[in-house]
Amino acid sequence: METPKLRGGKIVRSENPVNLEMPFENLDGFLTPTPEFYVRTHFPIPRIEKTSWRLVVDGHVNAPFELTFEELAKLPSRTIPAILECAGNNRNLLIEKVKGVQWGLGAVGTAEWTGVPLSVVLDRAGVKPNSIEVILEGADKGPLEDPKAPPGDVRFARSVPLTKAREDVLLVYKMNGVDLPPEHGFPVRAIVPGWFAVASIKWLERITVTDRAFGGYYQTIDYAFWDRKGTNAELVPLQELQVKAEIARPTEGEVVSPNSSVRIRGAAWAGGGAEIAKVEISTDGGKTWNAAELGKSVPNAWRLWNYNWPTPSTPGRYSLIARATDSLGRTQPVNRNIDRGTYMINHLLTVTVEVKTGT
Amino acid sequence: METPKLRGGKIVRSENPVNLEMPFENLDGFLTPTPEFYVRTHFPIPRIEKTSWRLVVDGHVNAPFELTFEELAKLPSRTIPAILECAGNNRNLLIEKVKGVQWGLGAVGTAEWTGVPLSVVLDRAGVKPNSIEVILEGADKGPLEDPKAPPGDVRFARSVPLTKAREDVLLVYKMNGVDLPPEHGFPVRAIVPGWFAVASIKWLERITVTDRAFGGYYQTIDYAFWDRKGTNAELVPLQELQVKAEIARPTEGEVVSPNSSVRIRGAAWAGGGAEIAKVEISTDGGKTWNAAELGKSVPNAWRLWNYNWPTPSTPGRYSLIARATDSLGRTQPVNRNIDRGTYMINHLLTVTVEVKTGT
Repeated sequence: METPKLRGGKIVRSENPVNLEMPFENLDGFLTPTPEFYVRTHFPIPRIEKTSWRLVVDGHVNAPFELTFEELAKLPSRTIPAILECAGNNRNLLIEKVKGVQWGLGAVGTAEWTGVPLSVVLDRAGVKPNSIEVILEGADKGPLEDPKAPPGDVRFARSVPLTKAREDVLLVYKMNGVDLPPEHGFPVRAIVPGWFAVASIKWLERITVTDRAFGGYYQTIDYAFWDRKGTNAELVPLQELQVKAEIARPTEGEVVSPNSSVRIRGAAWAGGGAEIAKVEISTDGGKTWNAAELGKSVPNAWRLWNYNWPTPSTPGRYSLIARATDSLGRTQPVNRNIDRGTYMINHLLTVTVEVKTGT
Repeated sequence: METPKLRGGKIVRSENPVNLEMPFENLDGFLTPTPEFYVRTHFPIPRIEKTSWRLVVDGHVNAPFELTFEELAKLPSRTIPAILECAGNNRNLLIEKVKGVQWGLGAVGTAEWTGVPLSVVLDRAGVKPNSIEVILEGADKGPLEDPKAPPGDVRFARSVPLTKAREDVLLVYKMNGVDLPPEHGFPVRAIVPGWFAVASIKWLERITVTDRAFGGYYQTIDYAFWDRKGTNAELVPLQELQVKAEIARPTEGEVVSPNSSVRIRGAAWAGGGAEIAKVEISTDGGKTWNAAELGKSVPNAWRLWNYNWPTPSTPGRYSLIARATDSLGRTQPVNRNIDRGTYMINHLLTVTVEVKTGT
């Protein structure tokens, strides 16, 4: 395997736009330090001044208005930990290669986010009856090469159903206690807890309430998947995180000693408000499973886990698999579902280690 | 220009699947004879026996049921003329070429259709409250090469809003007074009046009532366009015909005599229940316009028109343009709207003729 290029300790997956991955073996605690947090952009990073930034709230509301940063920061705020995972995380572990940024295990992280509940802003605008969605729109935009894309500049935008928007979406201005860095959406981004990170619009500029389903590029042609309903496959915007466990240590190809104890550890997460109920570990390629020990459970964040593996006396290659199950009983599929295209990868993945007497 | 290959008098635009165009200069009367009617298929033509055919009516209804052909034919029926136009009609007249079957002027025709109102069948099933759409599904299916398509076989299917479904959609078993030919959907097809033909599902097998928007391939990735709403372009299924006039005669490059009278004639049509209010003809490339004489106006069919052109004494090339305006005041744009991608071509088109003394 090629040694990946690193920048600031992160793996450079692309330069223009900039996409940086956390080496997942660096997982070391419940919160991911901001400098280690993966970076996902689609266009050049907008450089926005706090003093000139405005948030437009419009659409199907009684009183459209604009907010300055100062005004937003005075509104009641909350601080919550939340996981962000790119919908294409694990893409380079697919056996049949698909297009897109070739993320390994580390397009995921958990940070503490401080911001104003979107419901506060919606209440101030006065949402009209029959509204169903809220469009979140960023300042990032540009032309796309996809022949299926609209002509001209496309803005990054995503919608959430009004119920979700009112429930727990935050307009965030602090990450891990300090101002957002430019690459994470300075001065204000959305956090949509429990959803793939695509919905957590960075460089947020506009919030539009609508009485119809939004059909923007990033939830139709891109960031969507085929949902089988009866005899048809239907295009659906991807939303909720899928239940998943990832092994941080040991790493692929690592050599461990026989008759020793190796700590296998990682993180697991789920979507839709579910919590991780169980993580099981197999060290024989899926034949037998043992329960891992679980760390604290926090809504919409990952749950750390570990398992002490008594390594066998017989040298050879061993396949480690972690399998998560959530509180709704959902678990990871054995095989990849190709209807998901280039996204939502949560089937069981293997880490192969070698048991060998130390030299 | 290459001489197109003909079959049975129609232009062969593709063989597999079979796509045949009517040479539009053959326009000769309000109804298009079935052998001259354009043929549009996406997959091999399903060969269905009348006796084994069943129509499934299911989904968000109180009493799902199946109909035989015999049962369908006993239900109350209507006969209406209706125009069908392929959403990609005129594609080979675009200056910037786009993908798709390269139709000229003749992927359009008007026939008389006999069938059972969809509302009769819906009433029998008992549509549940909160239903919003009806999915029409054909027997035609196959794998697609588009990387954006769902894996495996895709069935041809389209939805119409429940209000439209109840208003005037027909389940048709006769075209111009006799059984549908195989290539036009035998034994039963839908006719969705005033919409692009893609919605008029052939080889109809299933009608599914739903309480949500259908997201099938043929109304999202394909047969959709970008609608600008605020700062975003949104993907929208194409539906209503766009107001348009086409010149059947004279044809491109035709030579006409000076100081004579040349009958310019063609057809015009509109969508959304509007009628053609006006067709204007320019013989000087759009500088001046004269009203054409209009034939009978029939809802959801084309309206024939003609104009006697007193040809000039000066020999040379003259640009003929026909421009339609509908009863809602909508008229044809001068320029192509590229948000429409490969579909919905209704900007003004020119037919260039040469005025030359006969030899």
